[in-house]
Amino acid sequence: MSGSSDRYKAAGVDLDAADQALSSIEAAVTSTYTPRVLRGLGAFGGLFDASGLPDRPILVASTDGVGTKTRVAARMDPEAHAWRGIGRDLVNHCVNDVLVQGAQPLFFLDYVASAALDPTVIADLVSGVASACREAGIPLLGGETAEMPGVYSPGEVDVVGTLVGAVGADALLDGSSIREGDVVLGLASHGLQTNGFSLARSVLEDRYDEALSDGRTVAAHLLAEHRSFLPVVTPLLEAGLLHGMAHVTGGGMPGNLPRVLPEGLGVAVDGAWPEPEVFSVIREAGGVTEEEMRRVFNLGIGFLLIVAEEDEAKVTALASEPVYRVGRVQRGHGVTWV
Amino acid sequence: MSGSSDRYKAAGVDLDAADQALSSIEAAVTSTYTPRVLRGLGAFGGLFDASGLPDRPILVASTDGVGTKTRVAARMDPEAHAWRGIGRDLVNHCVNDVLVQGAQPLFFLDYVASAALDPTVIADLVSGVASACREAGIPLLGGETAEMPGVYSPGEVDVVGTLVGAVGADALLDGSSIREGDVVLGLASHGLQTNGFSLARSVLEDRYDEALSDGRTVAAHLLAEHRSFLPVVTPLLEAGLLHGMAHVTGGGMPGNLPRVLPEGLGVAVDGAWPEPEVFSVIREAGGVTEEEMRRVFNLGIGFLLIVAEEDEAKVTALASEPVYRVGRVQRGHGVTWV
Repeated sequence: MSGSSDRYKAAGVDLDAADQALSSIEAAVTSTYTPRVLRGLGAFGGLFDASGLPDRPILVASTDGVGTKTRVAARMDPEAHAWRGIGRDLVNHCVNDVLVQGAQPLFFLDYVASAALDPTVIADLVSGVASACREAGIPLLGGETAEMPGVYSPGEVDVVGTLVGAVGADALLDGSSIREGDVVLGLASHGLQTNGFSLARSVLEDRYDEALSDGRTVAAHLLAEHRSFLPVVTPLLEAGLLHGMAHVTGGGMPGNLPRVLPEGLGVAVDGAWPEPEVFSVIREAGGVTEEEMRRVFNLGIGFLLIVAEEDEAKVTALASEPVYRVGRVQRGHGVTWV
Repeated sequence: MSGSSDRYKAAGVDLDAADQALSSIEAAVTSTYTPRVLRGLGAFGGLFDASGLPDRPILVASTDGVGTKTRVAARMDPEAHAWRGIGRDLVNHCVNDVLVQGAQPLFFLDYVASAALDPTVIADLVSGVASACREAGIPLLGGETAEMPGVYSPGEVDVVGTLVGAVGADALLDGSSIREGDVVLGLASHGLQTNGFSLARSVLEDRYDEALSDGRTVAAHLLAEHRSFLPVVTPLLEAGLLHGMAHVTGGGMPGNLPRVLPEGLGVAVDGAWPEPEVFSVIREAGGVTEEEMRRVFNLGIGFLLIVAEEDEAKVTALASEPVYRVGRVQRGHGVTWV
């Protein structure tokens, strides 16, 4: 199913009542279109002109949701437009997953489901998805909206995104060039990204309205955007400076770094970086051990770059934002804090 | 997120308890792999070698669920392995959507979410997805399993599939060769496919255990598989016999045929074909008007082929199953029964 008016029809939503939201969804979707999108066809699938892919193209695909971050959004005042942020989270999460392989994103598809569709929620979600797609330079090629009474709890929504990217086989980052002695550099997250919400919600659910030191509420901190690392990483990729990358998602650094390390190598973490305040609030409110904090949350580092030590200064200079020395690749296994 | 063991870890499922299901999931996923899948990489996205795509490749992508057919599956005895059928439905629905454009499938990704993951449900689902992927000759390239307490009602599951296919620009079927006088031919569905379940459930929910004339229960009829039309359609595509196609999903023939018809053309339906018994049971039990039946259900025709009248005999001869004359393309708009 493709196109935005189809989405409403398929879900059986009264188009008259939803007209306002529909036109904004329609406009949001088409705002992402690039010349590669074939339009005006009676398409059952979205059509993307993939001419000019690199030689021996590798397609990299990722499907993901945003976990129970949706439950925080569902508790917010509609005026806060929290679902817009969830839409952006969804795209950016997938962009980062594909980026780890050295791939550039090509197109995105979304799925939104709820017991009863609220047109303003859908409009916020799709406008967020579309804005993040525009920033990544990719079309929102298709999507589906499903009304599933009985399957979803009232007022709750699930969202699923799929991103397809491409990289030439000779530019694919597969971790094989990672060496002992390489340095591990970190880029900042803005908060939890989209992971650790089961623990965070159980610890903080009665404190959503409490202000942290910057005056913003706990809920606002929990909803902080899962940022895209595409703009900062792409110049580093093009300069050939990267041996490997990791996206710090569920499982934290210990769960994600080993996924890209060759057999026989581990990482010693000895660096320091700013930790967003929301993590210390969770740690203290829940009496959560440091080990569990590290296994569940990104703790302020959302994306990791593995580079030769002699290239560290070049990476730092070329990056358009602070780069933190997190640790070093060493013989061994897994991630250890030293 | 990619790979099957990751899926459990991310969802926080106890791996010891789920070991049995996990190994069957692992085996099911890898059973779909073709030489195009790049394995052994610490992949955050699934990697597919797309070398040798047609000139000016058009990627065709579709994301879809199976609607509230899941609610029928959720009411079945686990021994019936109804989720296996749901997994097959999910793949086949997407295969057909992409096929309409003349595209062949490349790879599939799935998403499964529930309030609490039941390893046997997941194992059934993934084994069904994998079996349909194998039949389509495509890998299950990635997937995500999410545990979302509070978002989903207890015992309910949602599943989302994304399929990416490809077709050369010169082989893309965009409806532009459809002419007045072309005949519309139909291929049989096995039942509701994955559409019309809100109406069907509301009418039949107290009669799931009742036997129809073949001895199979109403529930079994409702769960009849959404078949893939890929094997029967591919030889017709290769022979260049098709002007257009439509997948009869939500909206029935009136909702789906016009999506592929050029401006100024409609279809007059004057043919006959076998209607599965479940539709007459729904019609009678619910006092549903014929107009609504046609707008909600496929009524026995799951996929439509639009061909020049002089090619009808060739299509019928080349097809490996019965082909029904459904109607004819005429000047006008929409679908009318005559």
